[in-house]
Amino acid sequence: MRPQVLIVGCGFGGLEAARALRSADVDITIVDKTNHHLFQPLLYQVATAGLSAPSIAAPVRHLFRRQRNVTTLLGEVVAVNAQAQTAVFKDGARLLWDHLIVAAGATHSYFGRDEWAAHAPGLKTLDDAFEIRRRVLMAFEAAEREDDPARRAALLQFVVIGGGPTGVELAGTFAEIARHTLPGEFRRIDPRQAKVLLVEGSPRVLQSMPEALSESARKQLTALGVEVRLGARVTGIDADGLDITTAAGAERLQSRCVVWAAGVAASPLGLALADATGCTLDRAGRVVVEPDLSLKGFPAIQVIGDLAAAQSHKPGHEPRPVPGVSPGAKQMGRCAAANIQRRLRGEATQAFRYTDYGNLATIGRNSAVVDLDTPAGPLRFSGYFAWLFWLFAHVWFLIGFRNRFVVLVDWAWAYWTHDRNARVVAGDGLSEASPASAAAASARRPAG
Amino acid sequence: MRPQVLIVGCGFGGLEAARALRSADVDITIVDKTNHHLFQPLLYQVATAGLSAPSIAAPVRHLFRRQRNVTTLLGEVVAVNAQAQTAVFKDGARLLWDHLIVAAGATHSYFGRDEWAAHAPGLKTLDDAFEIRRRVLMAFEAAEREDDPARRAALLQFVVIGGGPTGVELAGTFAEIARHTLPGEFRRIDPRQAKVLLVEGSPRVLQSMPEALSESARKQLTALGVEVRLGARVTGIDADGLDITTAAGAERLQSRCVVWAAGVAASPLGLALADATGCTLDRAGRVVVEPDLSLKGFPAIQVIGDLAAAQSHKPGHEPRPVPGVSPGAKQMGRCAAANIQRRLRGEATQAFRYTDYGNLATIGRNSAVVDLDTPAGPLRFSGYFAWLFWLFAHVWFLIGFRNRFVVLVDWAWAYWTHDRNARVVAGDGLSEASPASAAAASARRPAG
Repeated sequence: MRPQVLIVGCGFGGLEAARALRSADVDITIVDKTNHHLFQPLLYQVATAGLSAPSIAAPVRHLFRRQRNVTTLLGEVVAVNAQAQTAVFKDGARLLWDHLIVAAGATHSYFGRDEWAAHAPGLKTLDDAFEIRRRVLMAFEAAEREDDPARRAALLQFVVIGGGPTGVELAGTFAEIARHTLPGEFRRIDPRQAKVLLVEGSPRVLQSMPEALSESARKQLTALGVEVRLGARVTGIDADGLDITTAAGAERLQSRCVVWAAGVAASPLGLALADATGCTLDRAGRVVVEPDLSLKGFPAIQVIGDLAAAQSHKPGHEPRPVPGVSPGAKQMGRCAAANIQRRLRGEATQAFRYTDYGNLATIGRNSAVVDLDTPAGPLRFSGYFAWLFWLFAHVWFLIGFRNRFVVLVDWAWAYWTHDRNARVVAGDGLSEASPASAAAASARRPAG
Repeated sequence: MRPQVLIVGCGFGGLEAARALRSADVDITIVDKTNHHLFQPLLYQVATAGLSAPSIAAPVRHLFRRQRNVTTLLGEVVAVNAQAQTAVFKDGARLLWDHLIVAAGATHSYFGRDEWAAHAPGLKTLDDAFEIRRRVLMAFEAAEREDDPARRAALLQFVVIGGGPTGVELAGTFAEIARHTLPGEFRRIDPRQAKVLLVEGSPRVLQSMPEALSESARKQLTALGVEVRLGARVTGIDADGLDITTAAGAERLQSRCVVWAAGVAASPLGLALADATGCTLDRAGRVVVEPDLSLKGFPAIQVIGDLAAAQSHKPGHEPRPVPGVSPGAKQMGRCAAANIQRRLRGEATQAFRYTDYGNLATIGRNSAVVDLDTPAGPLRFSGYFAWLFWLFAHVWFLIGFRNRFVVLVDWAWAYWTHDRNARVVAGDGLSEASPASAAAASARRPAG
């Protein structure tokens, strides 16, 4: 029997690892708890009704149909036995592995305030995106039926918490919907009166960017109609709004639609790995890995992507932490695959080295910031050309010709008409999501 | 104040009625419990992962954005007061009307066996389509993980109950998925071994068609790999399969994926109308209307579409029942709108007269039957050209240029590659749907 490679998770890291092993003399099993690979950088477009779910999600087994050494299984791995070299599924089934790559990713963290989850959904899965889409569209619907001015104003106030790339994208697109997509479609309210607030704890948005680009992003957001609140700490979230504290003191924001784009925590599978191997977790729950991405004392287990607290080891430089972005995950996937092949040949594994091509974030129509590392030095620009660059970079990396084409058509249409093509909410859309029903729904909902 | 027209329901009938009143000196309010108009003839394509939900659903208020005399409200009307001329919403809100058009449509009926609903979902809403999509795709996923041959065979047996147009479309497409879309993507099972059964109580499929076309449809289904069981009565459905009785006796069919395409019942709003006006309901719960579509003694209330038990009144002919198809609903919508305008002018209303353009049904790839009424007499054909005719007729009637275009691209892609573009299931897709979680989910799920 050929060596058995088990890959847990089919995000950017897991997908790339499996692909990098396409010619290896191994049997690969890739396990994911959903049936699709999700192109996460465009998930905010599903949440804001610009794209349908199938445009950014492809069935995992379809992606590997021609790679005959890959078996795709739908299931959730909940534990690992490092001695017996098995993985345990939620339903109790077990799978043997000789080499294990754990790429289970991350989820959102409410910094210990899990009760906020019901009032401020995050954006990691298709279900999250549908929930945000529902809340945004339903807030306008409810406002059209509301006669009380104060309640109507609360319905038309949208708050995004967290000024990272996702928060900036969501806030900018909400403003675009209110100002450009919906006007003319309501008879009792004017959607342009909707307020979009972006609340960020630090003094600037897009902290991973150079300061000048952060300031440019703030200006572009303001021009799109977003009110940016910097240095604002969230102290409470409930069904009717949130409490923040700024230098000016405490403030209450009324809102029926709050979105959480602030904290990220590693997958709970990190805890299971710590139980199994005694590996260390960092504060965000990420697994601290060796330079070659393996676990200390367990060379057959590698952890990659958002679940790994990995360092980039460039000869002659201090080790530097790898940022939680998709190029990082992909590069780790390739490194893990190469290390498995080295071990099979009896060679020493190599340390992971991250190549940073730069950073880009979109803000809304015609607005983006780009920070590239080129051989000739850093290249930074913002505005319309940054937006075009962002657009083609993202469409280019989208999986599958057909998706790229459909996404381009959707975007061209949206650009010229200001319309958004996925403004559809199934069911009556009116019932408030209770945490229980949301969990029940998220356990089994197909998508678009 | 101008006369207030209230239209309940935005299916084909309600949409057409509101459009026909575009130049009338009235204020129209159109109320629907979802935010979209659904192009129901293509809903089976969403259920079988061929199209994404936004391709066949358009926001109601977007459709009416330029018709300034229309106000769109999201909400569910649960009662009508015929004397006070009000409609009562689920949340207790009330709305005054001078003219009421009730176009609330139909739902599926399990002939009093409501416990079957959990095991055999029907296909009327986007949520239904997502549930069927989930069950079909997850059955293949579970089969790939199943080692027991009997359980695997049960997972790979799909049963569609009801040989009307929807049942025929679903069965044909399931067979196509098993034979053409999925082979090559699994490593442990061969999807071509899946069995698709179509169970019909009467002696032929497509009963509304001429007998020769029914026979042609049966042959085309068989050629696609569907096993057609005619004259088979369903006596029980549970989580593991169903019991049927045929001339040969009782039989048990093991299946984990049963779809209900057999019975239709009118919206419960029919009961509310009967309470309010004393109108008669037929056996399917449809409201028996006067020749002009109004209710006896209540000329300001008209009922149209699938909720109406209406007759076509062609001068010199016996009244004939109107079939429950979209052209019937649309024509009733136009008739109801015209009758409101006649009453506003003090004229007598006119009886409804249905023009039958014929009947078409698709079966699967290259397979369809067409039965047209032309001035030169009936025109009947089947097979490839019928399929092309069906395709262009459906794309033509799809709402909005963009949808038509995207649907054509999706179909062209699917035709040449045998691939299906919406094979995405959100969440882990594994949890069995309990009726309670299905209801909770269906109350709030956005779509694709």
